[in-house]
Amino acid sequence: MGLVTGEPVVVEVLRGETVESRHLGALAVVDAAGALHTAWGDIDRPVFPRSAVKLLQALPLVTSGAADAFALSDAELALACASHSGEPAHVATAQGWLTRLDLSAEHLECGTQWPAREPVLRALVARGEVAGPLHNNCSGKHCGFLCLACHLGHQSGAANRAGFARGYVAPEHPVMREVTHALEVATGQDLARAPRGIDGCSIPTYALPLRALALAFARVGTGSGLPPDVASAAARLRRAVAQAPFMVGGTDRFDTEVMQALGERLCCKVGAEGVYCASLPELGLGLALKIDDGASRAAEAVMAQLALRLLRPSGDAATLLQRLAAPVMRNWRGTEVGRLRMRLEG
Amino acid sequence: MGLVTGEPVVVEVLRGETVESRHLGALAVVDAAGALHTAWGDIDRPVFPRSAVKLLQALPLVTSGAADAFALSDAELALACASHSGEPAHVATAQGWLTRLDLSAEHLECGTQWPAREPVLRALVARGEVAGPLHNNCSGKHCGFLCLACHLGHQSGAANRAGFARGYVAPEHPVMREVTHALEVATGQDLARAPRGIDGCSIPTYALPLRALALAFARVGTGSGLPPDVASAAARLRRAVAQAPFMVGGTDRFDTEVMQALGERLCCKVGAEGVYCASLPELGLGLALKIDDGASRAAEAVMAQLALRLLRPSGDAATLLQRLAAPVMRNWRGTEVGRLRMRLEG
Repeated sequence: MGLVTGEPVVVEVLRGETVESRHLGALAVVDAAGALHTAWGDIDRPVFPRSAVKLLQALPLVTSGAADAFALSDAELALACASHSGEPAHVATAQGWLTRLDLSAEHLECGTQWPAREPVLRALVARGEVAGPLHNNCSGKHCGFLCLACHLGHQSGAANRAGFARGYVAPEHPVMREVTHALEVATGQDLARAPRGIDGCSIPTYALPLRALALAFARVGTGSGLPPDVASAAARLRRAVAQAPFMVGGTDRFDTEVMQALGERLCCKVGAEGVYCASLPELGLGLALKIDDGASRAAEAVMAQLALRLLRPSGDAATLLQRLAAPVMRNWRGTEVGRLRMRLEG
Repeated sequence: MGLVTGEPVVVEVLRGETVESRHLGALAVVDAAGALHTAWGDIDRPVFPRSAVKLLQALPLVTSGAADAFALSDAELALACASHSGEPAHVATAQGWLTRLDLSAEHLECGTQWPAREPVLRALVARGEVAGPLHNNCSGKHCGFLCLACHLGHQSGAANRAGFARGYVAPEHPVMREVTHALEVATGQDLARAPRGIDGCSIPTYALPLRALALAFARVGTGSGLPPDVASAAARLRRAVAQAPFMVGGTDRFDTEVMQALGERLCCKVGAEGVYCASLPELGLGLALKIDDGASRAAEAVMAQLALRLLRPSGDAATLLQRLAAPVMRNWRGTEVGRLRMRLEG
């Protein structure tokens, strides 16, 4: 009968009152000492966190001194942690940052991506514009890499900052070595032993257990278990994201809406293929989840449900999270045809 | 630990050589007598077939005499069976058909849908156009419903064809009663006892076992087990789809490419939420499959794999199906980052 996975169902997709589709998944919630608060499914299987760890990947931008040397704003630091929608504010912020580095979009190695959101794409085309690397959802992270490259290049006496930066997406480049080291410090994992893949924006991505990813975000939220400079950099990035949540996503984007509502109570980030990571500083907890099939609709719903349960918000934040945890599906005429139903228990 | 599904893994998504995501699913291949050729997973659980049964829903358009009365072309009949991309040829064909009915886009009850394919959407916006109901992927099916309504209205002496047609998406409308009856004849199921939902285009969709859906498509491919007029209508629709495969999907669409390559050897149709149905007339077989989480990438790969195994094509058709059964994933710079791997055995 073939391989059967033991992962539990976390979300059901209902059409009317009938289950149409199902999403399996796993999640870990741990504290900064690694003690397990909640586990669901297999939390020790390696998972590619993809963009869910952009905040960890931005840590060297701060610890290196680059953020101070280039006087980075909250908006720029938030953009370094973003998977943005390529809206004008994102593109302008990335462009302004590159200009201060005496670099341009051609130095970005993330590739060209047309905005994924239909209204954003339509607006861009209607303005007569053409997408480029600045519109790539990772362009802010790559501006951060280029900024770090400029700083490292200056420190090492490189005559040409663009020349030093070239090839920064390769695992062995000084920039990516700093990024990999930061991931190791935060997660406590040896990445040389982790499965490695190439991410959508061409940098390496390492598969790690959800347990270790959750631990990293508990540390990021508390500073506990991190060297002081890393703890301080994590706090600065969390504040920047809370100050500029639009930069992290965009119009109608989950992370933007949730962090606009919750501020520094929750620092959450989506990753491709159904991943979420988050810090909940007031509880001293970090979480990481993976939907087995890669569906973001289920990852978002589970993230919202966990935020509701753990943070117990009130008012508008509660209303928002309740909507996101059980989203209604409408058809082309706007008729309600179904909804997502949470299967997480306990 | 919560609900665990017993469905087997049918497709793995690899990043590098590491499994990043997994898709579970079920499938049935049966002959026109209902004898099981292949089964994988639970084939008796009700599944919403969504758009995968559009050919069955178009049967009354032919059996009623409407197709002859309005001298429908192969392109129009194929469009009635389509989930098209809203490209100019689709829109023009739908518009021309409506004009012959003395009706217009405002009579379509499918709702407005912007083209889902990014290049098609960009081209539409760049032309300064705005999407309407004609761009909806179901507009051809709805033209078929309106055409049937005109025919039934004329037969019943209705003074006003638009008035008779109004509300045709409702289960109790004469048009939808004919459509429901055709589904019952083809599948042998009593739809009054089946779970009912509302489809994306507002018509009812009934959840049926994959076994029954596969049987219907074995019958469609052979005529066996169907009343003579239904068997003849099924053959006519299959020929129309094989003659005009672009109408069924569009540029770079799976169904279009596969049927362009295989002609009448395979009549396949995707449905939303990971469904495929197909007739393989030369083998006397029908098939139906559902990816548990609704992922079309996995549904397409499994459909391609089954076509390869069952039809054993050669030349360009084999090359195409091999590519579609193990699609390569590339990132924004065009670098190969992963691929889909089939887990179907036996």
